Amino acid sequence: MKEVEHKFLVRSDEYRALARKSTRITQGFLNTHPERTVRVRIKGREGFLTVKGLSNESGTSRFEWEKEISENEAAALLNLCEPGVIDKTRYEVLHEGHCYEVDEFHGENEGLIIAEIELEEEGQVFSKPSWLGKEVTGITRYYNSMLSNHPFKKWSEKEQDDG
Amino acid sequence: MKEVEHKFLVRSDEYRALARKSTRITQGFLNTHPERTVRVRIKGREGFLTVKGLSNESGTSRFEWEKEISENEAAALLNLCEPGVIDKTRYEVLHEGHCYEVDEFHGENEGLIIAEIELEEEGQVFSKPSWLGKEVTGITRYYNSMLSNHPFKKWSEKEQDDG
Repeated sequence: MKEVEHKFLVRSDEYRALARKSTRITQGFLNTHPERTVRVRIKGREGFLTVKGLSNESGTSRFEWEKEISENEAAALLNLCEPGVIDKTRYEVLHEGHCYEVDEFHGENEGLIIAEIELEEEGQVFSKPSWLGKEVTGITRYYNSMLSNHPFKKWSEKEQDDG
Repeated sequence: MKEVEHKFLVRSDEYRALARKSTRITQGFLNTHPERTVRVRIKGREGFLTVKGLSNESGTSRFEWEKEISENEAAALLNLCEPGVIDKTRYEVLHEGHCYEVDEFHGENEGLIIAEIELEEEGQVFSKPSWLGKEVTGITRYYNSMLSNHPFKKWSEKEQDDG
């Protein structure tokens, strides 16, 4: 029920050739309040409802609860979500025993690419592939719940370059 | 996925003697926005996550989606909810083929008692028992999501008497 993860920008598209899988993801939010986000997701043909709590100070750890639901249920719930549905393609890339999930955003967030690694516990050692860029863990504008209301294309040049 | 219901105040406590079942309910909200409320409920020893959409104009009909979850999962999610957890005892009372659910509220909503009947479709005929009071369907302050933020004990005399 607790998720530990690190987020990075990416330097190059090498991850594509290394991916073992890519899946289209559509998701919206029933709530984007940072203390209790409620996410509806269709991933491939599967549906999920996910509740996340507040992050710790460094942004690496967060309460997370997820339930699988049917694609139809998820589609019905997506209709109820706040405006700003997110559309992205997720590449799964194995690197020295860990799986990086690389999200290429579409639509209003086109141009943004984020890699995430999920760990079993705080402080666990992991290796960074050469295509990985700057770490952006804990920077709230990269949260999907924020991208929904304030998409990448509307960021200032400074915000875009800071990545 | 659509709920049709009518809500009433009650005149007397006769419903208690007629009830076939009573269950304690504790519930909170991950979101109280009227367009997309997200409710976490522990009912007896069962857990539920329920999403409701906007009501129609008369307040009788509303999108509803519900998923059963474990009591432990519900307890963990209740910790994340907005302040103002609701505590009530629900009596189930059969009356001429329909089940009335009568909620006696505790804590900050003590003194409030609401009876609800759920129908299969709009306009379906149903019979009203003698202990039923004024209809309050569609009056938003009686919504549980509103009671959570603005409990009965804090209502003005006029608001309390209007029932």
